[in-house]
Amino acid sequence: MEDRNQQNRYLQFFSEDTASFMRSPVREIFKKVDLNQIYSFAGGYPSAETFPMADMAGLSAEVVRKYGAQAFQYGATQGAEPLRKALSDRYDVPLERIQITTSSQQGIDVCARVMVDPGEVVLTLNPTYLGALQSFHSYRADIRGVEHSSQLEAFRHNVEEVVAECRREGKTIKFFYIIPDFQNPTGETMTVEERKMLLSLAEELDFLIVEDSPYKELRYEGETLPSLYSLAPDLVIHLGSFSKIFAPGFRLGWIFAHPTLLDNIYVCKQSLDLCPPVFDQYVTAEFLSSGLLDKNLVKSIALYRRKRDLLLESLEKYMPGGITWTHPEGGLFLFLTLPVLFDAVAFYEKALSVGVAYVAGNFFFTDGRGRNTMRMNFSFLPEEKMVAGVQLLARLLEEELR
Amino acid sequence: MEDRNQQNRYLQFFSEDTASFMRSPVREIFKKVDLNQIYSFAGGYPSAETFPMADMAGLSAEVVRKYGAQAFQYGATQGAEPLRKALSDRYDVPLERIQITTSSQQGIDVCARVMVDPGEVVLTLNPTYLGALQSFHSYRADIRGVEHSSQLEAFRHNVEEVVAECRREGKTIKFFYIIPDFQNPTGETMTVEERKMLLSLAEELDFLIVEDSPYKELRYEGETLPSLYSLAPDLVIHLGSFSKIFAPGFRLGWIFAHPTLLDNIYVCKQSLDLCPPVFDQYVTAEFLSSGLLDKNLVKSIALYRRKRDLLLESLEKYMPGGITWTHPEGGLFLFLTLPVLFDAVAFYEKALSVGVAYVAGNFFFTDGRGRNTMRMNFSFLPEEKMVAGVQLLARLLEEELR
Repeated sequence: MEDRNQQNRYLQFFSEDTASFMRSPVREIFKKVDLNQIYSFAGGYPSAETFPMADMAGLSAEVVRKYGAQAFQYGATQGAEPLRKALSDRYDVPLERIQITTSSQQGIDVCARVMVDPGEVVLTLNPTYLGALQSFHSYRADIRGVEHSSQLEAFRHNVEEVVAECRREGKTIKFFYIIPDFQNPTGETMTVEERKMLLSLAEELDFLIVEDSPYKELRYEGETLPSLYSLAPDLVIHLGSFSKIFAPGFRLGWIFAHPTLLDNIYVCKQSLDLCPPVFDQYVTAEFLSSGLLDKNLVKSIALYRRKRDLLLESLEKYMPGGITWTHPEGGLFLFLTLPVLFDAVAFYEKALSVGVAYVAGNFFFTDGRGRNTMRMNFSFLPEEKMVAGVQLLARLLEEELR
Repeated sequence: MEDRNQQNRYLQFFSEDTASFMRSPVREIFKKVDLNQIYSFAGGYPSAETFPMADMAGLSAEVVRKYGAQAFQYGATQGAEPLRKALSDRYDVPLERIQITTSSQQGIDVCARVMVDPGEVVLTLNPTYLGALQSFHSYRADIRGVEHSSQLEAFRHNVEEVVAECRREGKTIKFFYIIPDFQNPTGETMTVEERKMLLSLAEELDFLIVEDSPYKELRYEGETLPSLYSLAPDLVIHLGSFSKIFAPGFRLGWIFAHPTLLDNIYVCKQSLDLCPPVFDQYVTAEFLSSGLLDKNLVKSIALYRRKRDLLLESLEKYMPGGITWTHPEGGLFLFLTLPVLFDAVAFYEKALSVGVAYVAGNFFFTDGRGRNTMRMNFSFLPEEKMVAGVQLLARLLEEELR
């Protein structure tokens, strides 16, 4: 009773933003189960097999040898020089356009922070990455989802329609948040024509683009496409991540952007956390500049390609009729569409009871649709469990859909 | 010219908060000079001599042995269990009241984020920690500085006056931000009576307390005093830091608070950066639970006590008349007050030209006062440079004040 009073007393102290805070259903799943004990197609965890465990001790030792105590001291807000230089070399971007972030999630969040006032519009594809929706909600953004279409003109029309609607309502549009390569959650990749179309609309209709690019280097087939940033570096804020190509435990990402945009992000970061983790940055810089990243990528890509193929084959083999799924050329996810009346949220508890986890697709939609969809991750689950996991899920779906 | 146009074009995209962003003068100093090449009394860097360099390789190896790939994978948003347990044991706080933060600066920032709407009041001592002022400004808080007084009743009166003034203006007060032990920038410590007085005012006048406690374990004389949190755990959000007792490069801190307060912080942290750096947390947990922290603290305290004494002696010996300073019982700083017309901001360039850096005191004031004050840090500068640094500064001050 007293504790209830105490809880009520606290309500007056919370900011208005907190009323829009959204709990991650994915993180709530992780709290309840040990992912290693079940067949998990949920989450976006990379495979631990891709972590260069054998190199870690050597990398750490080299960092201590090279930088000594500096690796454990406070560092520069913009990030450690060797890491920024390594990124500058790798992606051919000038140093003054590079900011290291404490995770690429921070990159997303700080973009919202320095650009979005309550009620202002952020455009996204519909569906899109849940963590971005969480962040935009937390700043009370007015999130407007744009339908993708495989027809270029139809896609252009969809963007123009949403923009026109915002304008009619007198709304300010700040940016279009988009994951062009192996999108989360659909696994789909934008064509070069779509990229150019979106950039020309941004220029014409006056909004910026936040390009989230955590999976770009994980391509299993087809040709690498130019990033939006490389096509229009003054229109695009590009977010990168070391979580899928090195180790998420280091919490490191980066931003490429025009120095004027970066300056506000830099000053904001001073009061957010002063600087990114320093030791982790030096280890990561060493991983890049020693050539280990590229060697490791070859292995990671081969592993993930096998896993993607195994998942696709298993779905083909075991899934009942009436279910379709995307064919990702890279990344970590594919997306299932089930019959219209199927409810993937309600079905989740059943699936979990036989040891299978996924993320219900509607969490990724800006408007609560997509209850008949689900996201499946293929990076985390070991190959030897993949087929059995799909079989269990397929059997249960067959019962459910009967 | 085109670039100027581009810059102007970006202005429309920035949020209202950015107009209140405040650049850290301390971080700007660090950008311009190599601290190791000068006599630096600026900043709040711990001495690299306190980093347990000889233990780092062993700690890392132990973490890899114990946790394997888990140390490089995504982690729980509330922080790694072994680190939370180690803090729970050390400070006798239940697990559900512990959140690990990516730096204690993040602890400050997230408190402002979940509690303060634009125009709402945050109370602080005047002067107070610059990084906190930066963060509160960035959320457009109305920061009201309270004058400290060594007379308990006068101090109480000052708090009551500021609160009454806010109430007359119809302002909502969210919390009092305070550093009770070895305050930044003054080095002063609140008495037990002051702590109890402040807590009873918080209860009576209905505001929370954010207790920032990064230096508490660094006491060089006198008795340890109870934290505000230990005296009133439901009124106080307690912020701790590993930066001064282990290694700031790991960017780790913690929050102790009532679970209801912590829950909003937890959800916010999901969209800020998902989780704190994982490997760093395991290394830090190992550092605590192995007993190395306590062993290392004994050495750090002895070193800092010598440095504080050396700075106090040197000031006594070389400083011209008309200058006074505080006598800190712990922490990293002391605070100088110079004759009323002296301008420590203008003097800074002169000091730097002879190789001495400090932070002008007025940056710590909520109202621009204190131009005749300066903060001196004694943790960073090696002992062998301390006396020469003070001599240089004293000579220049003597000329200036003549």
